[in-house]
Amino acid sequence: MTTVINLETITSIVKDIDVVTAMEQGFIAYSNNQTVVPPVGELLFEKPKGDAHIKYGYIKDNAYYVIKIASGFYENAKLGIPSSQGLMLVFDQKTGVPKCVLLDEGFLTDIRTAAAGALAAKYFAPKNVKGIGIIGTGIQARLQLEYLLQQTSCKEIWVWGRNTENAKAFAKNFSNDIHIHIAQTTQEVAQHTNLIVTTTPAEAPLLKAEDIQPGTHITAVGSDTHLKQELDSLILKKAAIVVADSLPQSKSRGEIFRAVQNDAITEDTVIELGNAIQNKALQRTNDEQITVVDLTGVAVQDIMIATAVYNTYLQTK
Amino acid sequence: MTTVINLETITSIVKDIDVVTAMEQGFIAYSNNQTVVPPVGELLFEKPKGDAHIKYGYIKDNAYYVIKIASGFYENAKLGIPSSQGLMLVFDQKTGVPKCVLLDEGFLTDIRTAAAGALAAKYFAPKNVKGIGIIGTGIQARLQLEYLLQQTSCKEIWVWGRNTENAKAFAKNFSNDIHIHIAQTTQEVAQHTNLIVTTTPAEAPLLKAEDIQPGTHITAVGSDTHLKQELDSLILKKAAIVVADSLPQSKSRGEIFRAVQNDAITEDTVIELGNAIQNKALQRTNDEQITVVDLTGVAVQDIMIATAVYNTYLQTK
Repeated sequence: MTTVINLETITSIVKDIDVVTAMEQGFIAYSNNQTVVPPVGELLFEKPKGDAHIKYGYIKDNAYYVIKIASGFYENAKLGIPSSQGLMLVFDQKTGVPKCVLLDEGFLTDIRTAAAGALAAKYFAPKNVKGIGIIGTGIQARLQLEYLLQQTSCKEIWVWGRNTENAKAFAKNFSNDIHIHIAQTTQEVAQHTNLIVTTTPAEAPLLKAEDIQPGTHITAVGSDTHLKQELDSLILKKAAIVVADSLPQSKSRGEIFRAVQNDAITEDTVIELGNAIQNKALQRTNDEQITVVDLTGVAVQDIMIATAVYNTYLQTK
Repeated sequence: MTTVINLETITSIVKDIDVVTAMEQGFIAYSNNQTVVPPVGELLFEKPKGDAHIKYGYIKDNAYYVIKIASGFYENAKLGIPSSQGLMLVFDQKTGVPKCVLLDEGFLTDIRTAAAGALAAKYFAPKNVKGIGIIGTGIQARLQLEYLLQQTSCKEIWVWGRNTENAKAFAKNFSNDIHIHIAQTTQEVAQHTNLIVTTTPAEAPLLKAEDIQPGTHITAVGSDTHLKQELDSLILKKAAIVVADSLPQSKSRGEIFRAVQNDAITEDTVIELGNAIQNKALQRTNDEQITVVDLTGVAVQDIMIATAVYNTYLQTK
């Protein structure tokens, strides 16, 4: 029998999952070459414009293989439908039997992305986080902060968005003991914080190198194409440690791709997240270092979260 | 809401669908370049050996796009599980919203393949079918005959299988007014019939050119790789008309690929099914011609049948 799990149930199950640890295990498997992940399948549409991507693969010797379908149809807003749509499928790795359909409507992609941000902070944030900076005010900005608050005791947040109303709406998602300051500029964010997450689809830098304080860690979440860029490439040049979630992907997209293109850094100085978290020598060694983790999104994250949701569902049945 | 339809319901719905006409429309759309079908995604497994294939695409200006996942794990038999597993997904082509999960367990692939065989017979069988030959005794052999019996009034069937017991079991699927003769050799089949379907995974020819009678039509269903072959390449040389379901696929797999490799025919003499059924000049012109249709399986068939099942489900709700 194939189990079908809807979004309501998935949302409830995710609360019982340690997604950050699942991501940690996934990135380690990925960097240790224990994953099989073929190239992403792509389907393009013209009327209206849209795209669907099929990401799939498995971790060797695990119980399941996973397929994720995710689409973006940007005219959906006119119809009152989210532009992002999709689902995940879990299959038995030893027989091919379809075990589970996760009708997550893109929710698990949001969650696994936020959890990767928390994982980056777990290993690279300075010892004393004096302020958390959030660039962007959308769903991913909210989820990043939710997951970060589980990694640090810091409750001073500076948020910046192009639209101040959106920043106010963002603040309302959190309880009063979380002090959310609405910044007028990204410079103001950088002045007050040393743990910053960027979550926008910007195609020109939002943060400048001269504004970043010593000891700051930045996780760049927004850029996952060759066009998007949130960080001045000089920030990566200034950084003591630059980490990619996927070295192969960093050669064609994201902040690292842009910084290499701009001759700010060279590829050989970049390390991979799954290697960094296994090796203390690759981590922060003092509280003056600037560190950058660039997340472009890796299929192993989908594999891990889909598997975790299905396994947790089975346990609670 | 995403509708989930199980095998029992699918089996019931398919009885109400004119699948042969759906295949006809699909092959026409395909040959008229109205389909968007990216390369097949593939995932290989080692422990145990297995493979999963992801076929996906859409017909332009249709309501849906379709993704099919089909796997083969050949050690499943030990576990009492079918080696073939899979499902189909139907998405809204204008928004990306997942509309339907078809938990068909590979059934719709079997049906669309059988219906393509009936379509081939509809356009290429001789006017007077004196006997129907079936090579092979498995599920596809049975379905091919079921669908052929809807295209012709002939009730004289010759069946051959490597195992006579399997041929007897095959015969029991049909009512007594269908006269099923169990042949000892494929030669015996060819002597009594002028409409033959081959449905085996053979890797060496089962039918010889000298045994084929004038006016015979052969649909080759079994070979869908570069290794499989059921027809002596001289049969294709002797044929007045050689048809591929997909010209691009015939360059790398199936009977046509093998016949070209063996210098029995040249690629430029082969026509595509969707073109042939639109143009009388490309069809049989007399009852002496031998004709061959080589079916390797095309994603547009999956698109058509998945869409037809979902639409029929919506109508009967």
